[in-house]
Amino acid sequence: MSGLNAPISCDLLVRADAVVTQDAERRVLDDAAVAVRDGVVVEVGGRSGMEARYDPGQRLDLSGKMLLPGLVNAHTHLPMTLLRGFADDLPLMEWLEKHIWPVEFQLTEELLAVGARLGCAELIRTGCTAFLNGYLREYVTGQVVADCGLRAVLGEGFFSFPSPMFPSAEDCWKTVRDLDARFADNPRLRTAITPHAAFTVSPDHLAASFELAVELGVPWQIHLAESPSETAMCLEKYGKRPVELLHDSDLLGGRTTLHHCVDVTPDEIAILAETGTNVVHNPASNFKLCSGVAPVQAMLDAGVTVGLGTDGASSNNQLNMFRDMGLAALAGKVRADDASAMNAQAVLDMATLGSAKCLGWPELGRIEAGFPADIIALDLGSPNLMPVFNHVSHAVYAATGMEVCMTMVAGQVLYLYGNFRTMDIQSLKTEAGEAAKWVLAAAGK
Amino acid sequence: MSGLNAPISCDLLVRADAVVTQDAERRVLDDAAVAVRDGVVVEVGGRSGMEARYDPGQRLDLSGKMLLPGLVNAHTHLPMTLLRGFADDLPLMEWLEKHIWPVEFQLTEELLAVGARLGCAELIRTGCTAFLNGYLREYVTGQVVADCGLRAVLGEGFFSFPSPMFPSAEDCWKTVRDLDARFADNPRLRTAITPHAAFTVSPDHLAASFELAVELGVPWQIHLAESPSETAMCLEKYGKRPVELLHDSDLLGGRTTLHHCVDVTPDEIAILAETGTNVVHNPASNFKLCSGVAPVQAMLDAGVTVGLGTDGASSNNQLNMFRDMGLAALAGKVRADDASAMNAQAVLDMATLGSAKCLGWPELGRIEAGFPADIIALDLGSPNLMPVFNHVSHAVYAATGMEVCMTMVAGQVLYLYGNFRTMDIQSLKTEAGEAAKWVLAAAGK
Repeated sequence: MSGLNAPISCDLLVRADAVVTQDAERRVLDDAAVAVRDGVVVEVGGRSGMEARYDPGQRLDLSGKMLLPGLVNAHTHLPMTLLRGFADDLPLMEWLEKHIWPVEFQLTEELLAVGARLGCAELIRTGCTAFLNGYLREYVTGQVVADCGLRAVLGEGFFSFPSPMFPSAEDCWKTVRDLDARFADNPRLRTAITPHAAFTVSPDHLAASFELAVELGVPWQIHLAESPSETAMCLEKYGKRPVELLHDSDLLGGRTTLHHCVDVTPDEIAILAETGTNVVHNPASNFKLCSGVAPVQAMLDAGVTVGLGTDGASSNNQLNMFRDMGLAALAGKVRADDASAMNAQAVLDMATLGSAKCLGWPELGRIEAGFPADIIALDLGSPNLMPVFNHVSHAVYAATGMEVCMTMVAGQVLYLYGNFRTMDIQSLKTEAGEAAKWVLAAAGK
Repeated sequence: MSGLNAPISCDLLVRADAVVTQDAERRVLDDAAVAVRDGVVVEVGGRSGMEARYDPGQRLDLSGKMLLPGLVNAHTHLPMTLLRGFADDLPLMEWLEKHIWPVEFQLTEELLAVGARLGCAELIRTGCTAFLNGYLREYVTGQVVADCGLRAVLGEGFFSFPSPMFPSAEDCWKTVRDLDARFADNPRLRTAITPHAAFTVSPDHLAASFELAVELGVPWQIHLAESPSETAMCLEKYGKRPVELLHDSDLLGGRTTLHHCVDVTPDEIAILAETGTNVVHNPASNFKLCSGVAPVQAMLDAGVTVGLGTDGASSNNQLNMFRDMGLAALAGKVRADDASAMNAQAVLDMATLGSAKCLGWPELGRIEAGFPADIIALDLGSPNLMPVFNHVSHAVYAATGMEVCMTMVAGQVLYLYGNFRTMDIQSLKTEAGEAAKWVLAAAGK
């Protein structure tokens, strides 16, 4: 009888009203518990049995809450959080050229760090535990992430034309190698190769960067097919549509993740499926910049792995995966002309397992024995989560993200009941206020 | 010198970092204060001057917060909050006929009250201070609203075919008169005439109900042009499209508010503008039921007053006006094919002044001397509201609604820093749990 066996030791035993596991059977366990040891989930099961079997170093009683895997944000630009609400309601190129770029080109390391800290605070607050970041001076964001305990894949952005960081794309290679080496000992930080886009990076540079990704054994990520105007630029420059261009250059496949894919044809979706290429959906950003709505249900039907991302805060203006889950589910129905499309489970899958695969970190996005203990809790006492019929529906349709009352990465609690354990939010508010004054001055306002 | 004058007495003086007034000039005042007397705003102005001039009975220090007018939800069905997440991702008629209606037909007054209380709790929590409700047994919702201190316009729904309440539409008239009389002494409750839709209420009954609205001096509200399939039904039944049908029956005009208007042509928009007919936009519901996206920017351009609503929680699944503001702004850009469409100010206007006009209560939706003191506060210390460049942008794009830390109606604080002053949320959670069991039993699950 198990009751007579010696108790099993673990670091932490978490109990909750329900656990949405996102395991292969998509089990949702009521009145359950999760045992964690060395940052990894040891077992998930019924509460009473687990409490009898385990002798934890610490207990976390989350009665009245539901647990979910930490959400995975597969596309963001964290330091841009500094520019949240700085310029809205503008066409893409006017927004970039007249408002965003002039300020970005003047950003110091200190300001990038403030932006990254703002982003990390919002991610932790809204239950995101891992993310893919693409920006400049990624060592700055990497250090902020290391300090606050999140997981991230860092991607140094580059173009074939001169940018604030590099005279040309190939000048980026050494920076990427340094970045990869710099955080090699931190198990929560990884690297990706992130050329900006097919219309800003030349085919030669795309190919060379892909070789580097193969050499380093890391994912290769690119903005692609974001809008019809990008397609028009590609056609003018190369006589090919974006997906066609990459396909003809042998740049599609399991190592590759394409961000956006709003303007893709059924034939192109078939190519993405055949090659095992991953896609990241960013509905809020695609709406805000008037790019369109990606045909995500069609991609899922074709067997494409699709993850979910918020994009940067200056084109969203949130880094809140719950908001983008809601958008993906709602807008996806009208896009597919089918009220049963993009159902709650499919959307939660995107924000967990799908995004994890896009990050090249497929062990994330689930609460399951043997996998990292990246877990969040939502307070079912929030009026908008009453009553409870379906926990997955609540996560996708009813939650705002602010019901998150606990965020844990690798068994480390980063946030609990309003308290950030690895960040000083009061100081951050002051820093953000000062940084905003700098931004206005830099913009000549 | 004003400093030498006797101080002006008032009931309450609220100070905050910023006040988004929604007055005619759309002023946003930094470091400001609002004086309230007898439930009405006496003055809005700079903090230091106001603090010197007024001698308030009570002070509310909301430093670090911004004030907004209480949002006005121009379309909801409060008791349906009981069915939040009960059935999702289904086509409209399957959803209604197989899941919603079978349960709704069995709802008792006690269950309706639980649903209404759940809805009121979420509205208060997310900064909505007034709403238009359409459902059955509106006296139940009316009493719940009276108890919790919100404002509402109550609309008893009716059809020309037998419903749980009425054998036919005309059986509703007495109920409406009783409802109008029942709450006549409560300045926070009003009545509207709310036929369900043009395809479920006969032209005779529509006309008779409009006469009743004129007699009682109340608004006339109807679901209209919600989807292409509704248009098809109208064409089949009457040989006319929905707007055409109402126009030919002289049912359009300033007393009339049409809910949804997803499937309207440019000619029909012109008719709505010419007749001064109001429209309510419900983006989340229109997405979730796959109805489409209403051409709201085109309506605003034509001069139509447009308000904003959440619809019921079973087709949203939130009653959170901040979520629908974000959706209206985001989706409206792609709908209009213009990134500058549906800008933040236009959307906040819809959720305040526009909705207020749709309710027939145009004095709501602003913070201005002489108007009701319906005010909410958002905590600018929430990470997702840092930094601050533009308060209106933050309200529409960055806020989730859960940053609301104070909700006030007619000078009465209903919610402050997590505490509901007129509702018992702990008991409500228990009631909701019991009610959910009843729902599952009623549905045979």
